[in-house]
Amino acid sequence: MTEQVTAERRDGESRSARKRRAIMEAATTLFLRNGYLGTSMDEVAALAAVSKQTVYKHFADKERLFTDIVLGVTDMAGEFVEDVTRTLRDTDDLEKDLGALARRYVISVVRPPVLQLRRLLVGEAARFPELARTYHERAPERTVAALAASFQRLAGRGLLRLDDPLLAANHFAYLILGMPLNRAMFRGDDGFTRAELEHLADEGVRVFLAAYGRR
Amino acid sequence: MTEQVTAERRDGESRSARKRRAIMEAATTLFLRNGYLGTSMDEVAALAAVSKQTVYKHFADKERLFTDIVLGVTDMAGEFVEDVTRTLRDTDDLEKDLGALARRYVISVVRPPVLQLRRLLVGEAARFPELARTYHERAPERTVAALAASFQRLAGRGLLRLDDPLLAANHFAYLILGMPLNRAMFRGDDGFTRAELEHLADEGVRVFLAAYGRR
Repeated sequence: MTEQVTAERRDGESRSARKRRAIMEAATTLFLRNGYLGTSMDEVAALAAVSKQTVYKHFADKERLFTDIVLGVTDMAGEFVEDVTRTLRDTDDLEKDLGALARRYVISVVRPPVLQLRRLLVGEAARFPELARTYHERAPERTVAALAASFQRLAGRGLLRLDDPLLAANHFAYLILGMPLNRAMFRGDDGFTRAELEHLADEGVRVFLAAYGRR
Repeated sequence: MTEQVTAERRDGESRSARKRRAIMEAATTLFLRNGYLGTSMDEVAALAAVSKQTVYKHFADKERLFTDIVLGVTDMAGEFVEDVTRTLRDTDDLEKDLGALARRYVISVVRPPVLQLRRLLVGEAARFPELARTYHERAPERTVAALAASFQRLAGRGLLRLDDPLLAANHFAYLILGMPLNRAMFRGDDGFTRAELEHLADEGVRVFLAAYGRR
């Protein structure tokens, strides 16, 4: 009996989480297609195939819904930050480990949900300056700061040569991400195969190490 | 008498051009603040301090106005493309000439009218996919293609070492523009002094030449 109740509650929670995700996906689609102003909670409910009451149970208003969508993507940046620190802390093959990290970096950023969110947020940055700033701090800036801290440690071990770790981290980031990210902002996300993204990562690392690697 | 008529006509044309520019500036402000859908031709007329009739004399509808604003910015990219070709064609001091070009590049891209337009267009790219694609082709892609052609010529003269001129051109572009451009997309355009932009250009060229310069 107890087990049955628990199972029902777990199913209930999981159904609730599914509905929440469906609402966020529907809202992302509509915000992207029609802009923030051009999207109503009624349309979100219809596309998510839930009642309007259910939408408001999960999100107090449209602004809250938009904010939660944006901040949800920054969680993925947090995971990559841990990856950076873990991968570079004790590396004894910098070229190999940095190359693998660069591939994970480009593949984690240049994919539909992240790119769509970026386009949406850039378009609404004038209406939501604080949210845009928060996203910028918690996603790209946090990642670059983690890279900078790791690069400084590697310079201390004599594995990199650099004066300005933050600048080096920005060079690393945009050697790898600059072109596909910029393209995706204007053209959507259909531009690159996984093999092409990995090639961009490999070539970015090659240029980075030519400038910052041990001679 | 003839001179007076000519002067009057010139004043007339100049007044018309001034009004056109005032309408485009007002529309850019409103599109950025309220989005494409949230902006009306009435509001554009009011902010530009002209009659609605004058707005429609210059722009048949809101879509035409938006399109002309976007394509206006690509003219500046055309000027920079000529600069690239002219500067690099016969250089006998690549480090100096490439450094000066990089400074002009960052200063021409990282400034309010260009950044505002980019934010606006990224936000509306889902509604105007063809316009976003045209902008991308005529501005960033055309610039990078011109850099690639010049880099290939320099490789032919033995001044650069590269296999993939287009990739090298993208590396050059995003070493210099990546960070300030990305920041401006989320935070607006108040982030960098001219001296800071020039420093970014200089450091980008240093990294580029470490990877692609003659040993």
